[in-house]
Amino acid sequence: MSEASDAVITANARFYRALGNADLEAMSLLWLHSDESACVHPGWPMLEGWELIRQSWEAIFENQGPFRVWPGEVSVHLDGTTAWVTCIENIDTSRELTDVLVQTQATNIFRMTGGEWKMIHHHASPLPTGSGSGEERRISPN
Amino acid sequence: MSEASDAVITANARFYRALGNADLEAMSLLWLHSDESACVHPGWPMLEGWELIRQSWEAIFENQGPFRVWPGEVSVHLDGTTAWVTCIENIDTSRELTDVLVQTQATNIFRMTGGEWKMIHHHASPLPTGSGSGEERRISPN
Repeated sequence: MSEASDAVITANARFYRALGNADLEAMSLLWLHSDESACVHPGWPMLEGWELIRQSWEAIFENQGPFRVWPGEVSVHLDGTTAWVTCIENIDTSRELTDVLVQTQATNIFRMTGGEWKMIHHHASPLPTGSGSGEERRISPN
Repeated sequence: MSEASDAVITANARFYRALGNADLEAMSLLWLHSDESACVHPGWPMLEGWELIRQSWEAIFENQGPFRVWPGEVSVHLDGTTAWVTCIENIDTSRELTDVLVQTQATNIFRMTGGEWKMIHHHASPLPTGSGSGEERRISPN
């Protein structure tokens, strides 16, 4: 893996840490604050522009608080100042439901700006149960 | 719109024409035949590599044949030799079901190669009913 790929993977991991910690400040730091930024939460219509995206995270974090989430099957694609990551989002819903692992599929696009990879696009969508590699069912992030 | 944006919009429109016409050859021409290419059909696990993607289109086209589909709310993002398009996919299911318009949300990534914008990533996911602008409910592609 190149240094640039490592930096993109780090930015992607930071996104899932901010999500799991329900940390709006960390989430704000890693997004590009631009009208061009867009976000598709699973099953939601797409939100365009950082302000709408920020409001959505605020509402989600207030509603559900911290939870365990970690990326799996991470794949990085680099081209100049744009990079995209595909990954499965492993979500532990045992706090609210029974001990069930929900998985979603994500496409995350990052742009290099000011020496940092900033998230500019997030598209997450539900996956059918049991469609991942199976590894995530046993591996814990901690 | 720049000339490059126009070319990306044209490539994106060509994708929906190939899809609607169930045209595997046209679909093959517009995709990058690479292990890096990836495709998420609505509700499916992600397929990686052109060969798996090609097989999926072949199966989809054989199964459902031609149908009316057209993009709406098209937004283009350009950065060097990478571009991505977000759009709503309007799908007319009146042939199989009642006269219902189904909408999905797409993120389509293209790479400029050999003077052409080739699709390298397609992520489509179901949208809740009635979440689009509403315009698509009245506008026909023909």
